[in-house]
Amino acid sequence: MDLDFWLATFQDLGKKIAEQMKQYAGTADGALIMGKGAGGDLTLKIDKIAEDIILDKLETLNNNFDQEFTLVSEELGIREFGSNSDTCIIIDPLDGSFNARQGIPYYATSMALATGKTVNDVVLGYVLNLANGDEFYAIKDSAAYFNGREIKAREVEIPRAFVFEAAHNKAGLKRVEPLLDMFERARCLGSTALDICYLAAGKVDIFFYPIPSRTIDYVAGKVILEEVGGVITGMLGENLDELLLNLEKTLPIVAAGNPVTMKKVMDIIQLSRI
Amino acid sequence: MDLDFWLATFQDLGKKIAEQMKQYAGTADGALIMGKGAGGDLTLKIDKIAEDIILDKLETLNNNFDQEFTLVSEELGIREFGSNSDTCIIIDPLDGSFNARQGIPYYATSMALATGKTVNDVVLGYVLNLANGDEFYAIKDSAAYFNGREIKAREVEIPRAFVFEAAHNKAGLKRVEPLLDMFERARCLGSTALDICYLAAGKVDIFFYPIPSRTIDYVAGKVILEEVGGVITGMLGENLDELLLNLEKTLPIVAAGNPVTMKKVMDIIQLSRI
Repeated sequence: MDLDFWLATFQDLGKKIAEQMKQYAGTADGALIMGKGAGGDLTLKIDKIAEDIILDKLETLNNNFDQEFTLVSEELGIREFGSNSDTCIIIDPLDGSFNARQGIPYYATSMALATGKTVNDVVLGYVLNLANGDEFYAIKDSAAYFNGREIKAREVEIPRAFVFEAAHNKAGLKRVEPLLDMFERARCLGSTALDICYLAAGKVDIFFYPIPSRTIDYVAGKVILEEVGGVITGMLGENLDELLLNLEKTLPIVAAGNPVTMKKVMDIIQLSRI
Repeated sequence: MDLDFWLATFQDLGKKIAEQMKQYAGTADGALIMGKGAGGDLTLKIDKIAEDIILDKLETLNNNFDQEFTLVSEELGIREFGSNSDTCIIIDPLDGSFNARQGIPYYATSMALATGKTVNDVVLGYVLNLANGDEFYAIKDSAAYFNGREIKAREVEIPRAFVFEAAHNKAGLKRVEPLLDMFERARCLGSTALDICYLAAGKVDIFFYPIPSRTIDYVAGKVILEEVGGVITGMLGENLDELLLNLEKTLPIVAAGNPVTMKKVMDIIQLSRI
């Protein structure tokens, strides 16, 4: 499998989507409802634009260049391109879609490539912050990059910044509470893919998604995070590697910049019976 | 008073600070501790760089161009430039300093100009998102602008996006909870100045700062928000106009895009005895 080819493809797609978002994010036009995505969320015009850019490219690769793969997409669901390939492409065209609709400057496109059907098979992750151009990617067992520079694994430091999702959910917020004292500041920013990538790049120290998540939400970020010594598991420490690449909601997840911070967080989670 | 002159000055300062932040935000070098600000927070190198750019300019204006004014600054405290002027310049060189230190892409420089010593005297507000270049400003009783385009007052819509501060504070978080059901999503982004400006620009619908705030935190945003029909008060509806422009912590505050949304929020706050 030509990983450089796929990385270049993802970068090209990201650039095209970012250009369109400059025009449509935060506008009434961009917020028009176009239908319902395979993941169950409403599909807005901004989602559709991002999806169409990707679909167009994937169809060309399949029709004209004999590339075969299975697409797993937040919007389209699972679709076979060709009949018999283990290659899997996992895409959330617009992660943080709510932010993009509103014009809150924190949303991304998230893409990953796998050699099989499970989380452990992901070999390339690519995430682009569409609101400011920050770019993250990693090739498994090779290296991870933030804006073109290799990310180095961090020394263990005092954990300061805690990022969580699900603040529109009281049950989720309750699960967040016991962790607040451990950190200087908490943030709820609204894009899981970006949260995990900024964690990988050392900008935040822990990410907590206290409600059932989908593999599609985090696999691109996971390969980037793990490449720099970070850890991501289920909320109770479950290994995520055998989970299938699909749109099913499974486990709440926790991610940390290093095992020491993860251990501290797991201790609090267990102690407080979140 | 030449408002256009001051607006151009603020824009020039913003541009210079943004350039420096590209180099220092999110780096170990930028996070070096340089002392303690007048507001009580630690002064990091990034704060100092932003402050020095401003101070340098203000000293030049005072020394070489006979401009007299009182400076109220998050870092420097209150300082007189000249002996007898009602002009007041209120500056937070780096609002969302924690985000800037970490490299979380949401921090700003916030500047305001007043013709006297109270909140009501503010006539010009300027806020620049240093992480993505979004620029907000307003001249009182004239117009407000987002990225160079005039912001129009919005129709009353269904409120969707709730932004709050103080998620590092359990008491604050408890005050947030009763409001969660009212909105589709909640966010805790980490810059009061930006939160109020994105509210003014119609990107979010309500901003809640449930712990005592300082006038310096919100006056630039307030003049922008009010110019487009938005409302900002104390948490119990207190008028903020007579508060002094200084660094004292006074009231928790609430801001809304329009009076209808504000009424709904106030009803919930009173009902739930937050």
